[in-house]
Amino acid sequence: MEIKVGEKILSKNDQIALETKKILDEKGIFCINMMSSPGSGKTTILEKTIPQLMGKMRVGVIEGDVATEIDASRIEKFEIPVVQITTDLFGGSCHLSAKMIADRINDLPLDELDLIIVENVGNLICPAGFMIGADADVVVLSLTEGPEKPLKYPAIFQKSHIALVNKIDLAEVLEIDLDTIKGNVEKINPKLEKVFLSARTGAGFSEWIHWIEDNVRTKKGL
Amino acid sequence: MEIKVGEKILSKNDQIALETKKILDEKGIFCINMMSSPGSGKTTILEKTIPQLMGKMRVGVIEGDVATEIDASRIEKFEIPVVQITTDLFGGSCHLSAKMIADRINDLPLDELDLIIVENVGNLICPAGFMIGADADVVVLSLTEGPEKPLKYPAIFQKSHIALVNKIDLAEVLEIDLDTIKGNVEKINPKLEKVFLSARTGAGFSEWIHWIEDNVRTKKGL
Repeated sequence: MEIKVGEKILSKNDQIALETKKILDEKGIFCINMMSSPGSGKTTILEKTIPQLMGKMRVGVIEGDVATEIDASRIEKFEIPVVQITTDLFGGSCHLSAKMIADRINDLPLDELDLIIVENVGNLICPAGFMIGADADVVVLSLTEGPEKPLKYPAIFQKSHIALVNKIDLAEVLEIDLDTIKGNVEKINPKLEKVFLSARTGAGFSEWIHWIEDNVRTKKGL
Repeated sequence: MEIKVGEKILSKNDQIALETKKILDEKGIFCINMMSSPGSGKTTILEKTIPQLMGKMRVGVIEGDVATEIDASRIEKFEIPVVQITTDLFGGSCHLSAKMIADRINDLPLDELDLIIVENVGNLICPAGFMIGADADVVVLSLTEGPEKPLKYPAIFQKSHIALVNKIDLAEVLEIDLDTIKGNVEKINPKLEKVFLSARTGAGFSEWIHWIEDNVRTKKGL
């Protein structure tokens, strides 16, 4: 049976995503879907983010990759719950689907979490087309990818709630003007919140951490 | 009608790709399919490569992007034939298909070319699954993406004939060991040729230029 929301007929994927979202809503868990190109620094951002949240909230992570458990093992050192999904079990899928998340979400201790961060497969195109049941979509763009990326890959910037512009410590050596990136993001999505940071140095993280804290509080009705 | 090669039944995409390859074979044109993550430097590599080939051979370029004609306009300054394919006309497709290439290949002056370089859509996963009719697959990996990328995105490294490791000018500032990247590429595909270069400084380009020249000569039976 297809669920109709207004006039829109939901895909099977989106139906499953809404079921996951309902579970997370009932548990009061805020869920982030983090998306980007390969190598933009998603996992390094998590490595800097998690220690700043520990003690304030209970965090779980779902790592999505085509192959290897490298990313999950980088997160496990924080001794928080981590699930690794490798899509090579699904033909090397280029994105996480709602079903992949739904099938594994209960491997996390949902009654003991306030926040789940899902690190999607590194891909600036396909993940934008598949809801997974998260509350917020976060796009990471690294300076090294060049300032024109929002123009060339618009869908993910149109869909996201916040953009993390990473590797700002390399702005000088790369001779990249942050205002150009800002302008290009705004051309595609004028309302998209932007945080400029460096996962390497830790610069700019307080704004990102506050964004998470505010959203976790709101989700809990606090 | 499906064409059988040995026991393998070709997909519709691959059938079209083989038709394109046949046309290019008849014309004696060597064709490269260049693939990578967004922002690894494919277009900048082309900007450094084309001037070193001009006068020695006749080059045409096909630019694949989800949106914008930014890349084609960067190539047009060399006054060589360029075709831009934007996949937003095809639902924002995450890769070039054989049909997209076949539909536009005749927009290039095929009787006046020795080499066609196709710059695929920036995506380290999906383009590996779609033949387009090229003679050789080239994967570009930039240092800024981190040394573990071949392990995490194996298919494209298994399929490719040569890997260009770009942005080596940043090795020191990023504290990345080129031997680690080399080792990771070899774990996935021991036979994959590797060229370390910097499209920014021009370092390492002679090996890449020789690779192209050798292949163009071989294709022409010289």
